[in-house]
Amino acid sequence: MQATKKASESYTIMTEMVLPNDTNTLNNLKGGVMLHWIDVCGAISAQKHCNKVVVTASVDNVSFQEPIKLGNIVTLESKVTRAFNSSMEVHIEVFAEDIPNQTKKKTHEAFYTYVAIEANGKPVKGITELIAESELERNYFKTALQRRQLRLVLAGRMKPKEATELMKIFGE
Amino acid sequence: MQATKKASESYTIMTEMVLPNDTNTLNNLKGGVMLHWIDVCGAISAQKHCNKVVVTASVDNVSFQEPIKLGNIVTLESKVTRAFNSSMEVHIEVFAEDIPNQTKKKTHEAFYTYVAIEANGKPVKGITELIAESELERNYFKTALQRRQLRLVLAGRMKPKEATELMKIFGE
Amino acid sequence: MQATKKASESYTIMTEMVLPNDTNTLNNLKGGVMLHWIDVCGAISAQKHCNKVVVTASVDNVSFQEPIKLGNIVTLESKVTRAFNSSMEVHIEVFAEDIPNQTKKKTHEAFYTYVAIEANGKPVKGITELIAESELERNYFKTALQRRQLRLVLAGRMKPKEATELMKIFGE
Amino acid sequence: MQATKKASESYTIMTEMVLPNDTNTLNNLKGGVMLHWIDVCGAISAQKHCNKVVVTASVDNVSFQEPIKLGNIVTLESKVTRAFNSSMEVHIEVFAEDIPNQTKKKTHEAFYTYVAIEANGKPVKGITELIAESELERNYFKTALQRRQLRLVLAGRMKPKEATELMKIFGE
Amino acid sequence: MQATKKASESYTIMTEMVLPNDTNTLNNLKGGVMLHWIDVCGAISAQKHCNKVVVTASVDNVSFQEPIKLGNIVTLESKVTRAFNSSMEVHIEVFAEDIPNQTKKKTHEAFYTYVAIEANGKPVKGITELIAESELERNYFKTALQRRQLRLVLAGRMKPKEATELMKIFGE
Amino acid sequence: MQATKKASESYTIMTEMVLPNDTNTLNNLKGGVMLHWIDVCGAISAQKHCNKVVVTASVDNVSFQEPIKLGNIVTLESKVTRAFNSSMEVHIEVFAEDIPNQTKKKTHEAFYTYVAIEANGKPVKGITELIAESELERNYFKTALQRRQLRLVLAGRMKPKEATELMKIFGE
Repeated sequence: MQATKKASESYTIMTEMVLPNDTNTLNNLKGGVMLHWIDVCGAISAQKHCNKVVVTASVDNVSFQEPIKLGNIVTLESKVTRAFNSSMEVHIEVFAEDIPNQTKKKTHEAFYTYVAIEANGKPVKGITELIAESELERNYFKTALQRRQLRLVLAGRMKPKEATELMKIFGE
Repeated sequence: MQATKKASESYTIMTEMVLPNDTNTLNNLKGGVMLHWIDVCGAISAQKHCNKVVVTASVDNVSFQEPIKLGNIVTLESKVTRAFNSSMEVHIEVFAEDIPNQTKKKTHEAFYTYVAIEANGKPVKGITELIAESELERNYFKTALQRRQLRLVLAGRMKPKEATELMKIFGE
Repeated sequence: MQATKKASESYTIMTEMVLPNDTNTLNNLKGGVMLHWIDVCGAISAQKHCNKVVVTASVDNVSFQEPIKLGNIVTLESKVTRAFNSSMEVHIEVFAEDIPNQTKKKTHEAFYTYVAIEANGKPVKGITELIAESELERNYFKTALQRRQLRLVLAGRMKPKEATELMKIFGE
Repeated sequence: MQATKKASESYTIMTEMVLPNDTNTLNNLKGGVMLHWIDVCGAISAQKHCNKVVVTASVDNVSFQEPIKLGNIVTLESKVTRAFNSSMEVHIEVFAEDIPNQTKKKTHEAFYTYVAIEANGKPVKGITELIAESELERNYFKTALQRRQLRLVLAGRMKPKEATELMKIFGE
Repeated sequence: MQATKKASESYTIMTEMVLPNDTNTLNNLKGGVMLHWIDVCGAISAQKHCNKVVVTASVDNVSFQEPIKLGNIVTLESKVTRAFNSSMEVHIEVFAEDIPNQTKKKTHEAFYTYVAIEANGKPVKGITELIAESELERNYFKTALQRRQLRLVLAGRMKPKEATELMKIFGE
Repeated sequence: MQATKKASESYTIMTEMVLPNDTNTLNNLKGGVMLHWIDVCGAISAQKHCNKVVVTASVDNVSFQEPIKLGNIVTLESKVTRAFNSSMEVHIEVFAEDIPNQTKKKTHEAFYTYVAIEANGKPVKGITELIAESELERNYFKTALQRRQLRLVLAGRMKPKEATELMKIFGE
């Protein structure tokens, strides 16, 4: 395994067309289908960073604000933000495009985490370190610690009062 | 629309069998497929509460701890926890069962929110109020406010310092 | 294998949403999709009773009387009615619900049989006996013999004149 | 609508390859998938006879005796056996072939009925009469009445004692 | 392996119904779905000729001239035209039928080639020779050499000036 | 409609993961699935160039040389090569990647053509002209005429002796 890898080396683009079975009775893309696509795109980025099979470990809060219509082209772009010992956080952005009407908008942003798995089924120890280069990458790298604490608190594996990064934000 | 409805009236059970296309190369259920199933089950509960078409508004943090194998039977159970003006929060629990080996375990728990939509495509105003009866239902009803503030903060629509419910938890 | 098990222990609920690909050109659920869903629900009940892998052995006459529309929620409920040496009969009821319009109706009722299979691929000998408790369960348990004879006659494995249970019904 | 049409004019051949998602954990075709394929093939034969949209009205008893393996080629052949006022009975035969091993066997035989539907959604009155030519076709044409009575009895729409065709078979 | 086999022994008929997910936003069958169906039908013909597993080696130019509508019945018919040492060329014809409107038209014609594969994953050497009987079969058998040269030239594995069969057509 | 557009503006990347249902019995991607994915990717490029709905008009010869395995990540990249009056030719390249084994190879190259369609269902007249910039783009632009003549000859809409561009290649 390489000692370090750049965030940009995990960059992945995925494109999907919204088909009838992907829509609800309003002819808009169902939320669950979107969550699935984000998961696949993020997993490919995570694989590219660690060169291992990966499994989804968590999805952070995702909100759905604008409907995506039948026939729209959905583009997903993802990059690893930070590697921990066995897991990686991935940032995914989603854009929906109605090409004949020439409209394109950013519809979602999400953070998913993945665990890298060895051939024997055990989690990898010591994933390649991630090098954040651009200002945006460095910002995601830094704030990854806050999101990690929030995940641990929400999963009941860290006490709120020990979440030092979160206390800085929510505490007085 | 009825003035009030019990949480138990929205109770929904969904059963899925893990098929080959649902699995990753380790023969375990892919995270994205699970997120999709949870979304469908939760949407049915939300529809039962408000008797309207609903669309997914957000998914809260979900963590994946134990793999679910090919051929397992997955059971999802959901109930609305609280109704707001136009939206509802739904709690979904997921169980995976290997029937020949007689093992059954709870694998996930999630909170999704849905917005109720009128026939004209606008959000419903004034969804039926939810009556929480059991102790567990009353607890989810009460903590729904905290989760709601967390969603607003994470979506950038509330400042952390205004999230009074969260400050009680993370603040000193 | 347990010596006996209650009918209610095999109770299974499955929920499906009617998607575009499930419908015919009239926007109604196709009969074949319904037969498939019933098969899956019944198989899970059969598995629960015998704790073995099961394969479908037969489907009895199923009639389709009312159309089920795109977007409807279909709920299937199944329970084993009687266990024979290697096979089980399962009773499945199907309900279709148009939640926004608040209509729910029972649309189908079916009997499927399943054979329990050992790990070596051979049929199990001596499946756990089924205990019918409610009046309805006892009735299905009793009439299972008639349906079994009808299946054997229709499959050409019993002569009509030996079908003593059927002769009681159709004979003079 | 033509006054008469030959059975052979509704002859339909359908071919399917057994894919991973079509199989159970024993790598054999699931019963429900087979019931679905039979339904589609029969519906095409029924459409060919009446030149109308058709919906499935019933499936008769189908038994599953030999497993069909992943990768097998499944061939379905169907023909209308008899036309009634608004409905048609279709006979479907199914063959499974393992081409590299040069084995081919008949695995199923089924009778499905379909109702022809007008553009206004109402059942057609007075479907084209069917002309049975071969000895086999004439036999299916004749025994169609027995199967029709059995369906009515099983659906609770005819009393066993009025099922004169069945009494000839099961009565003393 | 048999020394020779007739073209007609590889004859295959496949039937598909155009479902919502198979269509573009104009409600017509997508080209890619058609290319997929042709591939499956041709592969079955190739398997029938050589009694081996086959893999697609090439698809020749296919043009799409008339739209095929949602709900249409698509029938594919295929036959091997010529066997080479390890590969076979298959001719596939496609018909689309709107049964309620009683229209049927030929929509496509294609030539695909397949390589026969041994159990060890290597190409078969010396496939059964094909006997062309009808005039049409003999014509396809003869022109197979031209199409083969065109494929080799287009794949960059033969120089245009060595394509003697093509020079007869395009040369002066 | 814009008067001109650069080739690079139609650049599209699509990513797919090879799932069980996409494979043949050798666990390799089926040719027909690949032809389908290429079609979708190319259609998106064509849409981007003309900002209209497009339908597939033809696929040129595609050859399959190396198997793509279950679990591989397939990346497709496409760009319009030349616009004609109502149609566009698109060049698509396909790469298959086994990320854990760190192998990536180019597996296919294809030319598909698409017709742009107005809202009234008629072909667009006078598609935006394409500007080829890089040397490769200019080369594809120039040779598009040869491929177009070959398509016309193969579809029987041009006589070989009128195919002046092809005669230069194959003629003496």
